[in-house]
Amino acid sequence: MARPREFDEAEATRRAVEVFWSKGYEAASLSDLMAATGLSKSSLYQAFGDKRQLFLAAFGSYRDERFRQMNEHLNDGQPARRSLEGFFRAVMAERPSWGCMTCNIGVELAPHDAEIRRLFERETAVVEQAFLGTIKRGQADGSISKRHDPLRLARFLVVCLQGLQVTARAVAGRARLDDAVATLMALLD
Amino acid sequence: MARPREFDEAEATRRAVEVFWSKGYEAASLSDLMAATGLSKSSLYQAFGDKRQLFLAAFGSYRDERFRQMNEHLNDGQPARRSLEGFFRAVMAERPSWGCMTCNIGVELAPHDAEIRRLFERETAVVEQAFLGTIKRGQADGSISKRHDPLRLARFLVVCLQGLQVTARAVAGRARLDDAVATLMALLD
Repeated sequence: MARPREFDEAEATRRAVEVFWSKGYEAASLSDLMAATGLSKSSLYQAFGDKRQLFLAAFGSYRDERFRQMNEHLNDGQPARRSLEGFFRAVMAERPSWGCMTCNIGVELAPHDAEIRRLFERETAVVEQAFLGTIKRGQADGSISKRHDPLRLARFLVVCLQGLQVTARAVAGRARLDDAVATLMALLD
Repeated sequence: MARPREFDEAEATRRAVEVFWSKGYEAASLSDLMAATGLSKSSLYQAFGDKRQLFLAAFGSYRDERFRQMNEHLNDGQPARRSLEGFFRAVMAERPSWGCMTCNIGVELAPHDAEIRRLFERETAVVEQAFLGTIKRGQADGSISKRHDPLRLARFLVVCLQGLQVTARAVAGRARLDDAVATLMALLD
């Protein structure tokens, strides 16, 4: 009896991220996932269970990597306003832009799917807390105006980030993104 | 030979809007569309061609209605800042919220579909122009600060609207929406 083909599960997950991130959940076919991972249907299903489980593993991998990047930007040793600007500019500079996978699944799946809605809620809260910490740091180091309540401003920045990701994903013009980020940054003065 | 069943095409389109708006394109099944419109597969396809054509008709109907509502709010006879706030509050007050169909298709379809990308681009430009007109009116009537360039601010408001719609659609908490709208409005001072 042939042994099951061995493969690197983390690497397969990473490749599945690209399929789900770029295409969304429904439009990602089994063929897409097999082509991207180089795995057979049976290997995929043996390792991950089903399409949904593979998606959840991929989303977890995406989230860990994005949070790592976000924290790197927000704790880059600069005044908080520059850290925030660096983060937003870096997110917008990605090419090709698939937007934000959390935002994408929030739109595609959250309205009908309680588990995904909880995931979205949890990720949103993590980003909100990271922004909140950076805003408080900026209000202490003098780089961010104290005229806004920090939590309200953090929530607003999360909404702006989601809006920017939609604009980036729908390829609705670079000038729009640049103008929007410039206006957003002026809000911090 | 029986005559094809007669039906109101505009009404069928309006009901298809609810399916595509709430579920998205891929997740909207033929059964969903038949159930919502009360039409058989053959009637649907005879009238609209295929799922994509029905979707495009539904999106056109959605867009016309939303633009009508937007223009009503933005031209409600109040100072421009209050018109804008009325519009944003009304959008956020919808329950259940399916977000914005333009934003939804921007996330789900635009990255892979040039026709949908052009639609998204066109609708975005229409909203941008409507906001631009209102901002200029507000800078003239004194209700909106002149410290922002009107076009940049209009583009930013479009991004905020998309972000708010994502948050609303993903049901990520009423407090987030209220805080974000309050911060957005403070930006106009």
